[in-house]
Amino acid sequence: MSAHPPISFAARESKQAVEEGMLFAPKFDEHGLMPAMAVDADTGAPLMLAYMNEQSLKMTLELGQAVYWSRSRNQLWHKGATSGEFQEIIEIRTDCDQDALVLRVKQHGGGCCHTKRPTCFYRVVKAADGEALLEPAA
Amino acid sequence: MSAHPPISFAARESKQAVEEGMLFAPKFDEHGLMPAMAVDADTGAPLMLAYMNEQSLKMTLELGQAVYWSRSRNQLWHKGATSGEFQEIIEIRTDCDQDALVLRVKQHGGGCCHTKRPTCFYRVVKAADGEALLEPAA
Repeated sequence: MSAHPPISFAARESKQAVEEGMLFAPKFDEHGLMPAMAVDADTGAPLMLAYMNEQSLKMTLELGQAVYWSRSRNQLWHKGATSGEFQEIIEIRTDCDQDALVLRVKQHGGGCCHTKRPTCFYRVVKAADGEALLEPAA
Repeated sequence: MSAHPPISFAARESKQAVEEGMLFAPKFDEHGLMPAMAVDADTGAPLMLAYMNEQSLKMTLELGQAVYWSRSRNQLWHKGATSGEFQEIIEIRTDCDQDALVLRVKQHGGGCCHTKRPTCFYRVVKAADGEALLEPAA
């Protein structure tokens, strides 16, 4: 994707290094995936939660656009590559144990969700009388 | 936890019902888990990403405080039950395919992260010269 050398990740040396160190040593699960939550970089509004494998995370870092791993299609998913609804990476954060990501993005195109809404998180869960119902989010 | 009848979830009838319906029909993965991203209800700041199983999600809805499933300890994890750093649920949102949650919470106690920081997402990932490094988040 570029003439740069491929990005390498660090080994997970110790709990201390993972939590306090400055080397990125991401932990993927037994399927080689980690969750990535995309949020609007300006407002912080949650947009979607998807998964990245090592290759898609490296592509995301190189390209500056979100590339996920589609668990349903079992293939790389460069979001917006065909629809134009790509996600420009403003910042990527990782958590204390480096097994989750927050992507602060600028969402391009019509919206994040395939239902044509700006966000995938458009419904609120309410429990009432032993049943859990959904309501449109404010 | 209460005298109310236990909360029941709906069956996943169809893609249309899951995406557009008003019944909560959460999808758990092959381990019986779904990811839950906790964010500050006031600022939207990401706090932590953890997992819930059906039982912990129902407990969360009944109790109004976040109850996760600890994958490392393989047990229910009522966050803050001993430390006081509990998460008061302001709102729970689910996504289009109902396989992820966003918890808008009021974080009580000293902070969300076990490292004593307000959030687990305290570092930014940067790629430079083929290496991925971390920097403190602003």
